[in-house]
Amino acid sequence: MDRELALQLVKEQLTDHRYQHTIGVMETAIVLAKNYGVNEKKAELAAIFHDYAKFRPKDEMKQIILDQGLEQNLLHFNSELWHAPVGAYLVETEVGITDSEILDAIRYHTSGRKGMTLLDRVIYLADYIEPGRHFPGVEEVREMAKENLDQALTQAVKNSIQFLMRKNQPVYPDTIYTYNDLVNLRRSD
Amino acid sequence: MDRELALQLVKEQLTDHRYQHTIGVMETAIVLAKNYGVNEKKAELAAIFHDYAKFRPKDEMKQIILDQGLEQNLLHFNSELWHAPVGAYLVETEVGITDSEILDAIRYHTSGRKGMTLLDRVIYLADYIEPGRHFPGVEEVREMAKENLDQALTQAVKNSIQFLMRKNQPVYPDTIYTYNDLVNLRRSD
Repeated sequence: MDRELALQLVKEQLTDHRYQHTIGVMETAIVLAKNYGVNEKKAELAAIFHDYAKFRPKDEMKQIILDQGLEQNLLHFNSELWHAPVGAYLVETEVGITDSEILDAIRYHTSGRKGMTLLDRVIYLADYIEPGRHFPGVEEVREMAKENLDQALTQAVKNSIQFLMRKNQPVYPDTIYTYNDLVNLRRSD
Repeated sequence: MDRELALQLVKEQLTDHRYQHTIGVMETAIVLAKNYGVNEKKAELAAIFHDYAKFRPKDEMKQIILDQGLEQNLLHFNSELWHAPVGAYLVETEVGITDSEILDAIRYHTSGRKGMTLLDRVIYLADYIEPGRHFPGVEEVREMAKENLDQALTQAVKNSIQFLMRKNQPVYPDTIYTYNDLVNLRRSD
């Protein structure tokens, strides 16, 4: 699917603000993909569609999680997490993208997972550091991302966990498994 | 078992420094037990024996985890975690304490667990705030512990997770489940 058609399809699903964010993620993901030897076309498409389900009603997302046998534990956690796996499902069934690497990168772009692929890492990180993001710590991760994908990703995941703990919000287990996996990889370097 | 015999039995297992820590945990646990309506005698015994296995050789602890079917996932995490479940096993088999509440409080005093009992909470917290502990944040938790057991416990667990993340150390999943459980309890108040 070419970029223009993909952008046209996703634009209908998003607010203008979120569409601008998506453009930022796309441009950042392509730069990261080039730097770290990831298929740029897959990075482009995964980035364009990563927030495809962001504005679906909660009830619809919940029903998809139930009906399609997605990870049921999601329902016990913040609904902010739901749009990622539901997005992977809708991008496959509504948009017709079947590439499992692209779908996985969409599926895990919020929680992370143990054993993230390079494409997963690029999309997670691009979503975190795209130029429209402004929050404490983001500039440090942007700088790290120029030199070391995994160091930047580890810092992004740590910041996300700390952000949740400061607000006394639960941490989705996959996010801790992601963190543990990343620090174990770094220790075995 | 009376206090003197218990202290005598544990003293043989510990360094002088760790024995002094144990006395601090015992005294703190009794105060917390009184404040929060927990059986003081159980708190006393669980505190006295909480570090019973602390100085067992790693190989012996590993073998017990394997032979006794303790949580095998422990072996993928820092061996600092092992003395708690191994301690529960040894306190039962060598000391002869069979009270499951006491054994559980020993078993989960380092990792925590989902659904911690009041006795579990008292021992975890007493171990964290006893007067011999000196590290950033401990005084805040000591003050909280006078007013609100769960608020203090939540802060202690958060501090422990942050401490691990600052050192890029993995976080044992039970510790995140403990944190999630505590913040979910607070949100449903």
